[in-house]
Formats: sequence, C-alpha cells, structure tokens
Amino acid sequence: MGNYLFKLAALTTTALLLQACGGDAQTAAGGAAEPQQTYEWKLVTTWPKNFPALGRAPELLAEKVEAMSNGRMKIRVYGDGELVPALEVFDAVSAGTAEIGHGAAYYWKGKVPEAQFFSVLPFGMNGQEMQAWIQYGGGMELWEELYVPFNLIPMSSGSTGVQMGGWFNKEINSKEDFRGLKMRIPGLAQDILSRLGGVPVNMPGSELFTALQTGVLDATEWVGPYNDLAFGLYEIADYYYYPGWHEPGAIIEFTFNKQKFEALPADLQEILRTAVEAVALGMTNEFLARNALSLQELEENHGVVPRQFPEDLLHELNTIAQEEIDKLADLSPMGARIHQSYREFEASMSEYQDVSEEAYTRARKL
Amino acid sequence: MGNYLFKLAALTTTALLLQACGGDAQTAAGGAAEPQQTYEWKLVTTWPKNFPALGRAPELLAEKVEAMSNGRMKIRVYGDGELVPALEVFDAVSAGTAEIGHGAAYYWKGKVPEAQFFSVLPFGMNGQEMQAWIQYGGGMELWEELYVPFNLIPMSSGSTGVQMGGWFNKEINSKEDFRGLKMRIPGLAQDILSRLGGVPVNMPGSELFTALQTGVLDATEWVGPYNDLAFGLYEIADYYYYPGWHEPGAIIEFTFNKQKFEALPADLQEILRTAVEAVALGMTNEFLARNALSLQELEENHGVVPRQFPEDLLHELNTIAQEEIDKLADLSPMGARIHQSYREFEASMSEYQDVSEEAYTRARKL
Repeated sequence: MGNYLFKLAALTTTALLLQACGGDAQTAAGGAAEPQQTYEWKLVTTWPKNFPALGRAPELLAEKVEAMSNGRMKIRVYGDGELVPALEVFDAVSAGTAEIGHGAAYYWKGKVPEAQFFSVLPFGMNGQEMQAWIQYGGGMELWEELYVPFNLIPMSSGSTGVQMGGWFNKEINSKEDFRGLKMRIPGLAQDILSRLGGVPVNMPGSELFTALQTGVLDATEWVGPYNDLAFGLYEIADYYYYPGWHEPGAIIEFTFNKQKFEALPADLQEILRTAVEAVALGMTNEFLARNALSLQELEENHGVVPRQFPEDLLHELNTIAQEEIDKLADLSPMGARIHQSYREFEASMSEYQDVSEEAYTRARKL
Repeated sequence: MGNYLFKLAALTTTALLLQACGGDAQTAAGGAAEPQQTYEWKLVTTWPKNFPALGRAPELLAEKVEAMSNGRMKIRVYGDGELVPALEVFDAVSAGTAEIGHGAAYYWKGKVPEAQFFSVLPFGMNGQEMQAWIQYGGGMELWEELYVPFNLIPMSSGSTGVQMGGWFNKEINSKEDFRGLKMRIPGLAQDILSRLGGVPVNMPGSELFTALQTGVLDATEWVGPYNDLAFGLYEIADYYYYPGWHEPGAIIEFTFNKQKFEALPADLQEILRTAVEAVALGMTNEFLARNALSLQELEENHGVVPRQFPEDLLHELNTIAQEEIDKLADLSPMGARIHQSYREFEASMSEYQDVSEEAYTRARKL
C-alpha cells in the first residue's frame, strides 16, 4: 500500500497548490505533473476493429478513461492492420509508435519465450486460476520484470475462459491424426504439435477463414463459440472439437509504453490501471455469457455438433505438455523463477479446487 | 452505448465552458455538475473493519476513488457496529445515513426476499456464472429495478467463490443429523435447513466464534478457508465440511444511495462504477488465491481435515433446493421475472460448461 499513500500525498499537495492559487487549474500545477494537460493516445490491437469481446475491450477502456478523466485523456483504438499489423503490436508499443497495445503474451514467444507463462499453457491453469496467480500470486511482478527490457508495462485484460479445441477438416481419433496437419495454433501448443509431426502456423485471426478455405491450413483453433461464430469458421470446417486443452483460459494483455505511462500524472495512471481491471472483469464475464449463447446458435442454426477429443489422446497430450512446460524453466534464470512461481501456485490451486469449485461441480451433478 | 455518449457529450460541454472561462475551475461549472466540488462520503459494512478480502474491498474502493478523483472524493469506511450494526446497512444507505453500503443481498431477505437471487442460491450458479449473469445476462437490470423502491443502486463487488460447507460439532452422515441443529446459515439455505427440522440462525460474522463456543450455535458456516481462519473457527469446532452447497459462489454487494449517487457529476459516477468493477475483479482473485493458502495453513498448522458431505445427502439437499428456488417465482411478479432470467441463464451455462470449464477439468485429471 506504500505506493497508494505516496500517490495520495502527491495528489493532496497538488490540490493544496490549486487552492492556494485560487483555482486556476491551467497554471497552478507545480513539478512534473500537469493535472489539466490533455492526452491523445493510440491503442493498437491484434484483432479486427470492434471484434466481439476481444476488440470490444480496448474500446471500453477508451470510453471509461475519457469519462473518468473528464475528457483529459482520449484513446483512439486501431484494429489489426490499421496502424500496424497484428503481430507487430509488441514492437510498436515498445518503440512508442502507439502508447498502448492489446494482444496476448504468447504472440511474442519468438522474442520473449518466457512470456508464454502469462497468456496460457497447455494443460496448465484455467482462466480463474491464472487471474488469481497474476493478481494475488506473484505473477504480475514477474510479468512486469520480464517486460522491463522492452520498455513495456503489461496488464491483464481478463481471460477468454477455456477455449474450444478447434476446427478440423477430418476426424481426430489419435495422435497420429496430427501428423502432417497444418494447424494454426499459438504458444507452447506449437511445440506440442511439432512433436506429433504436425505443422504449427502462426497467423492472426483475421486470416483464418481464407487460409482454411484455400487449404493453406488443415485445421485452426481460434477462441470459443462467440469469436468462432463471428469469423464464420463453421462454414468451412466439418469438425469442432473440445476441450481447448491447449488454451485452458488465455489471458489477454494490455501493454503500455513504460516511459509514456510513467510520465502521466498519478491520477491518470490510477484511472488507466483501474479501467484495465474493470475491463478485465467485463471481458471475462462477456466471454462466458456470450460463448454459451453462441454455442446454442452454432448448434441450432448451423448444425454444428461439438465432439470431445478422445480421452487417451488428451492424456497423451497432457504428458507431452508437462514436459514442454518444464523445459521453459531452462530458458533463462527468469524462466526458472517464473516456472517455479507458476508451478507452486498451480499446486495450491489443485488441492483447493478439489474441495471447492470442482467439489461443487461434482455435487450439483449427483 | 447511448449512456456513454450522453455522458461524454456532457463532459465535453463542461470542458468547453471551463476553457471559455480561462480555466477558473472553481466557478466555471454550469448546471448540476460542479466538477471541482469535493465529497466526503461514508461507507458502512457488514464485516469487521479491514477483515480479509470482505473488509479489504471497500478500503480498496476508497483508495482508488480518492486517487482517480485527485482527492475530490474521499470515502471513510466503517466496520460492523462502528456507525450502524451489520444487519442495518441496507436501511442506513436507503435513508442516506451513509452513502455506500457493503454486504450481501440475502441479508435483506426479510425485507426483499427476491434479493436472494443476487447473492447466491443453494445448488444454483457458481461465482463465475453469477458474475456473467449479472453483467451480461440481464441480472444487473433486474437487480437495479428491485432496489429502486428502496432508493438504492446495487453493484456487484465480486464473488467469494464456492464456500465451504461449515463447521460442526458432530459428524454429518445424513439429513437426520440436521434435525434440531442450531446453525448460522444465510439466505435460502435457511428454508432448506428448516425443512430438515434444523434451526437456522441469522447472525453477523463477528458473533460466530462466541456463539459456537457458548453453545448458542451447534454449527456455523462462514465463507471459506481465508475468512474462517481469520475468525479462528477451527479452535472450537471438530468437523469442517465441503462443498458449500448452500453458497456456490456468493456475490458481495455494494449499495449506493440513489439520490446521492445521481447527484454526482458524470465523471465521479464513472469513477465509482469503474472502481467497483476493479474491486470486484480483485476480491474474486484474492479469495481464490488466499483460500488455497489458508486451506494449507488450516491443515498443516491446525490439524483440520476437511470432510465431504455424503453424496446421497448432497443429492437430497439439491432436490429440496430446487423446490425452494422455484417457490421464489411465486413471491411477486418481480420474483417471477428474476426467476425466469436466472433459470434461462443457468440452463445456457449448464450446456456450455459441459464442453468448456467442466470438460477441461475432466481432461486434466485423465
């Protein structure tokens, strides 16, 4: 709480200065903070403009910040490709081309492989557990430290919840069916697919429909029913699988250019941080509510019948996933520290869930 | 979005007025909004001051609002009994004795039985599902409408997650063991306990330890490991049961005095709403993270061994719970509308969870 007290003290000082000057807010501010200065910021995203939930979150951030700051800060949101391509968001915010980015940490695995911990790991923690780890389990501090060399401050924009397993042009009965399969899949699941002889492809969401339609891809996962419906993937794939073992609750990330953020007055910094947390709650809730309705629509209007991956395949994928997760500890000293924090929190969750959420889920089905 | 656009337009007008007047913020504001007016508000809670998570949430709200408003709004938090007793919070905020309250909607069931829908229902939706229903399933609009006659605006402060089943002075092997049992339990579970011949007791958390110690109670539930540990309930009860069938994810509520809230300038209203959402995210995450650690502490340092209620008992309790939930539809036209909304959302969740969260939980245990 020391940080809060410091900020409050700074704010009080500013308020006293303003009073002493007879309320002339335009000229009264002393020091670095200029409370009445206005800011026009750019926010670049890895999704199409106004895409359901994912694209809505940054718009909601912009609306909240403008309203709370009484118009002192305006944020303009750019969709994938409007200012920079989706997969250049990290670099663009790092360089200050835009002040804020919106994406997912595993998109940057080529540059920062340790970042994968802060999106989602195959057969790892679910969305609730990830959010608890990040905010109250030490995850946030490690994530911030990891991004310092890139001049970025990361923040969680909430979770997609468990995703779906993806759209396939053939049945998946065993791990042999992944051999030679060209599949869009992000993060550590790429390494798992490679071990099975598949061909993982890195591709932003906006290109998936065409790639699947033209045979560039044999399969793709995207998010869940809400987002998958929006891209019309049901039109061109025969099989829709669950569960999303590869993404049991992806965390979406905001990135802030560190210098730009730290140059803001304390109240605007707090407005941004609080707005991000509110957006994170809303996005998580929106996904759960809308995924359920979209699943009904896929089934009733588009004849989609979700299939479960075979249990023995899931068990094999889990075994490989745990091996790949443990390899992340060998990446760097930072990788080892994050791995330890993740694994310890995961273990405490596993024990607690057995008497709480999972116990209740079992009980209500009795 | 109409609401946002309206507010933004109002803010822009105010900003133009301020500019035209040469920045003299103290006198420039026209109309109802006075942007530089300061506010000192009182927040009364149903918990002890600074109690883990539950008491921390309103303090965090106060800190965030003061920082974001640059000191224009200060909120003083009062614990149970400091300004009003816990179970008078609803009336105190309704009357304007305090501007904000913090508690749970089922505490007011004697006055507004339909309010129970917005805390938690036995064998009903879990915390994630409740939050999604409230924010994106129509629950919030119904909750607001329900509280209008009481001059209150409700907001969700997040969820405790699935609670524990409670502390007992004897083993619970069948529903006969509830006969004659004096147990502190809130909400609709009181009616279920009564049907089993038990004696439900309404009592704020701060009185539980003494009541259990002196035999006023034979059993009590409170929240989960984090809060139960804080009250030291392990010292005086022999048996700790799970799962919390009676509270599968209680929503904690903020109440705002409607007239006071609506008289605020638009930016402060948005600051309060956004801070509440951020606090809701944080409280939910804090409960999950700290409950897991506190369970370990209860087991390792205090010899507590959680026991599961027998499965046939859980099945019987579920059957009674569904009957009692359906009776709420007969309370009033409002009760019928809320019941329908709740049941429809619950059904969509049940179908979706089977291919998402629950499917993943099964898969990672294979």
